[in-house]
Amino acid sequence: MDKERLKRQIDFIVEIDQLKRIMRRSRIIGDTKDDTLWENSAEHSWHIAMLAMVLSDYADEMVDAVKVMKMALVHDIVEIDAGDTFAYDQAGNLDKAEREGKAASRIFGLLPDDQRDEMMELWREFEEGKTNEAQFAAALDFLQPLLQNYYTEGYSWKLNKVTADRVLARNEAATHNSQAIKEFIDWLLHDAIEKGYLPDKY
Amino acid sequence: MDKERLKRQIDFIVEIDQLKRIMRRSRIIGDTKDDTLWENSAEHSWHIAMLAMVLSDYADEMVDAVKVMKMALVHDIVEIDAGDTFAYDQAGNLDKAEREGKAASRIFGLLPDDQRDEMMELWREFEEGKTNEAQFAAALDFLQPLLQNYYTEGYSWKLNKVTADRVLARNEAATHNSQAIKEFIDWLLHDAIEKGYLPDKY
Repeated sequence: MDKERLKRQIDFIVEIDQLKRIMRRSRIIGDTKDDTLWENSAEHSWHIAMLAMVLSDYADEMVDAVKVMKMALVHDIVEIDAGDTFAYDQAGNLDKAEREGKAASRIFGLLPDDQRDEMMELWREFEEGKTNEAQFAAALDFLQPLLQNYYTEGYSWKLNKVTADRVLARNEAATHNSQAIKEFIDWLLHDAIEKGYLPDKY
Repeated sequence: MDKERLKRQIDFIVEIDQLKRIMRRSRIIGDTKDDTLWENSAEHSWHIAMLAMVLSDYADEMVDAVKVMKMALVHDIVEIDAGDTFAYDQAGNLDKAEREGKAASRIFGLLPDDQRDEMMELWREFEEGKTNEAQFAAALDFLQPLLQNYYTEGYSWKLNKVTADRVLARNEAATHNSQAIKEFIDWLLHDAIEKGYLPDKY
């Protein structure tokens, strides 16, 4: 056994435990008065990997479902250093790429070179959003918090003063690589607007 | 598009959000005085899937790494109904199989039949522990909390009065399908004993 290789792998495994401490602006479905029910990026990544297992047949251009799943697992690890950047935070999104690039080098760099390269490539492909898999993974990453918002009557939307036009525009502009998911999201958002979960203005 | 199929899939995806509320007896590595740092079963499942991505080459009998990863993602979903059963809780382990079987039927039963069967099969295979993949996944599931205990100076071991002989015996008895991982765990446990993290008695 190559002990140096195993040591690096264990160092990485220990390091990524910290993704469980990176909090998102999404609520776990449940009592919105319960302040422990904020979602973190590790459990979010698990959820997206599960969405990949369940929904990959809805991709228009065929995807390698395993690659989508791996992307889901890996896509937020950089947040250990860079923090979670809320999708509707314009200032935070300005230097997101730079912060996350540095984080990727440090964290994936803990691994043996071959595995570092694999993880880096998965993360970069997801960020660039050009391949069928990356676009489909992004669709799942967009869908999941919408469900959490829908089933908490728009709790996080309202708290962060997110307006209907912004969420609808993100769905419209996105290349989801799935007409079915785009249509489902469109239905969900219009239903949320009608029910008063997603306001036009604040 | 088959709307009934998508509806069932979304129902399942919404339901499994609740795995993020199932607390384990493991600590996320960090300040042990910080009471928010208890691990839940969703983020744990993410971590095990990452271990599968990184460590699958250490299996003695070749494994389908993707299957190990899927097992990792799915293996604890039954805890939404059945709760997490601490490995050293003898009473709790008596009716674990019955509680978890009912939970699997209900939760995986939300899915379309083909996907219900796939998830059921992955979960059952993991629980039975007979295949190369199931034994290797169990090794990862055993290893991960040991790392958390090691890096918190045995916090959860001490809190739950877990003695060295019990942890050593579990490693000895387990069929990890990986001599390398068994040896690494053995090294880790003996080092933990020497450092006073894992006591002989309380």
